[in-house]
Amino acid sequence: MSDRWVVGVDIGGTNLVVGAVPFEGGQPAAMRTAYTRPDRGADAAVDDVVVMANEVIDETLERHGGTRDSVVGVGIGCPGPLDLDRGILLTTPNLGWANYPMRQRVSDLLGMPASLDNDANCATYGEWWRGAGRGATSMAGVTLGTGIGGGLILNGALLRGASGCAGELGHTTIDFTGRRCVCGNYGCLEAYASGPNIAARAREGIEAGDASLMVELVDGDLDRITAIIVYDALLQGDVLAGAVMLETAKILGAGIANVVNTFNPEVVVVVGGVTRAGDYLFTPLRSEVRRRAFDVAVEACRIVPGELGDAAGVIGAAGVFIADRGVAT
Amino acid sequence: MSDRWVVGVDIGGTNLVVGAVPFEGGQPAAMRTAYTRPDRGADAAVDDVVVMANEVIDETLERHGGTRDSVVGVGIGCPGPLDLDRGILLTTPNLGWANYPMRQRVSDLLGMPASLDNDANCATYGEWWRGAGRGATSMAGVTLGTGIGGGLILNGALLRGASGCAGELGHTTIDFTGRRCVCGNYGCLEAYASGPNIAARAREGIEAGDASLMVELVDGDLDRITAIIVYDALLQGDVLAGAVMLETAKILGAGIANVVNTFNPEVVVVVGGVTRAGDYLFTPLRSEVRRRAFDVAVEACRIVPGELGDAAGVIGAAGVFIADRGVAT
Repeated sequence: MSDRWVVGVDIGGTNLVVGAVPFEGGQPAAMRTAYTRPDRGADAAVDDVVVMANEVIDETLERHGGTRDSVVGVGIGCPGPLDLDRGILLTTPNLGWANYPMRQRVSDLLGMPASLDNDANCATYGEWWRGAGRGATSMAGVTLGTGIGGGLILNGALLRGASGCAGELGHTTIDFTGRRCVCGNYGCLEAYASGPNIAARAREGIEAGDASLMVELVDGDLDRITAIIVYDALLQGDVLAGAVMLETAKILGAGIANVVNTFNPEVVVVVGGVTRAGDYLFTPLRSEVRRRAFDVAVEACRIVPGELGDAAGVIGAAGVFIADRGVAT
Repeated sequence: MSDRWVVGVDIGGTNLVVGAVPFEGGQPAAMRTAYTRPDRGADAAVDDVVVMANEVIDETLERHGGTRDSVVGVGIGCPGPLDLDRGILLTTPNLGWANYPMRQRVSDLLGMPASLDNDANCATYGEWWRGAGRGATSMAGVTLGTGIGGGLILNGALLRGASGCAGELGHTTIDFTGRRCVCGNYGCLEAYASGPNIAARAREGIEAGDASLMVELVDGDLDRITAIIVYDALLQGDVLAGAVMLETAKILGAGIANVVNTFNPEVVVVVGGVTRAGDYLFTPLRSEVRRRAFDVAVEACRIVPGELGDAAGVIGAAGVFIADRGVAT
């Protein structure tokens, strides 16, 4: 029997990522990335996804042999909220698309079966299936990016909840009178620890008069401060950047302690760009969880960075396709 | 076949409650309540439980017929953390007992098999099995009392987590720089909305100079203010009491919104004395959940008071016994 593949598609607010994920394990055989440019509308982005998917399929089959039948289907991960049963995007604040039949559309254009799930669920599933959470009976995933998402795994399956919303950790409250969040509420985890909010907190410190190398790093244009600039300044010993990262770690620790006390998982896997801060993030984050969660829950739980990097969403989307359709591996 | 029964035992920081729970449904056939007086030690409390259980069994068999064999076993609910596998109390801050083999001890003294689970898990299971959560695929229970506990039900079973800690909603953070909690942390839900903390917040308002009927209701002895006094004053139109109850409802709403966004249950059942405040509690609580949680999660979720009153723990402990041992009903 020749190798079999599933196309994984990760549709984000910034990037479209497509890869051919092998059933047998290992990294995607081919990958393509393009800007999403969501303002063009969903159809244009889907057209790009289909072009990229066909390129990825051709490249994979050329390199590894087999026919188009070796590609069993396509798994799609996309920001929500989604109607999982019908495979429809309901309203996507980060994309601006609404009531779009994503699953059917991609399936029709590629001529193969498709699955659709939340992007954070896919990244979580990827890290459980082939990443840092392998073998765990229960796992929570936290995705740090433009927003904060999450997912929960129990007994090898995503916990989707009564309406497909389970694991939305970014919009859990950690300060009920706190910072305004893009979702309209106050004190969500995302309002502090998403990339843009890490940058905003640094900017606010400078505007309040704190001296910082960051001013120089962006040539005085504070709007250009990003989470990456904060991290660069931290590495150069900037006190404000260090304080912002420490506070970020503690706030993420409070949010993760909540999921540790509520769900009591064996492992929490944290993925996304901010995890490049490594021990600057994870050491105070773990301390904060230890301080806030029950000892027996903390002792049972590893808190680790993801292992799959940017491919987590693509690998996970393919894994969700396989799991949802009960395809024998 | 004659009726069958399970003895349910609810061991709380204040009261011991014991009842004979019928397999076939309905209220416990006989109930006994006594003060726990935890300072006497666990053995003395267990001796009381055994005396009460034997009285309850005798009364039930006398009234309904049958022999002692009709009583299949005893389910025990107790504050934790517990070692569920070994049936042992590890450390119980509210009782002061440690490393106590509760399950074995009760089983030996009553001469019947026993089960042990967390008290909030038992109350949650009771409300799912025979109360306000009947028929739900997923449910979160919140128990409001001296402390705040919780439990999660998924597909008809308690979700226990990697180390028996799942559902500990009282010690989730809703304000990471907030009030000090008995657990040592800051900003736990329990630090605001448990009975003693509702009273403490009212007392703090008076000490800060707010006029209140409550001063009169306790003859000027502010230490005598309880959550019940707050509720009595509210019914008499006291402004401070109204404000304290409104804030309690909003804070509980923030905590429940977190579990709605994380676990996405079909129903949240709130039990405990504070629920007597009825619409004064539930109307603003539901508004706050609606404000903070995802629309699709809120629409999928009922938030209701428990139906079993003080018997929830006893009924649930018996139900957990039946579920754990796979006894055919």
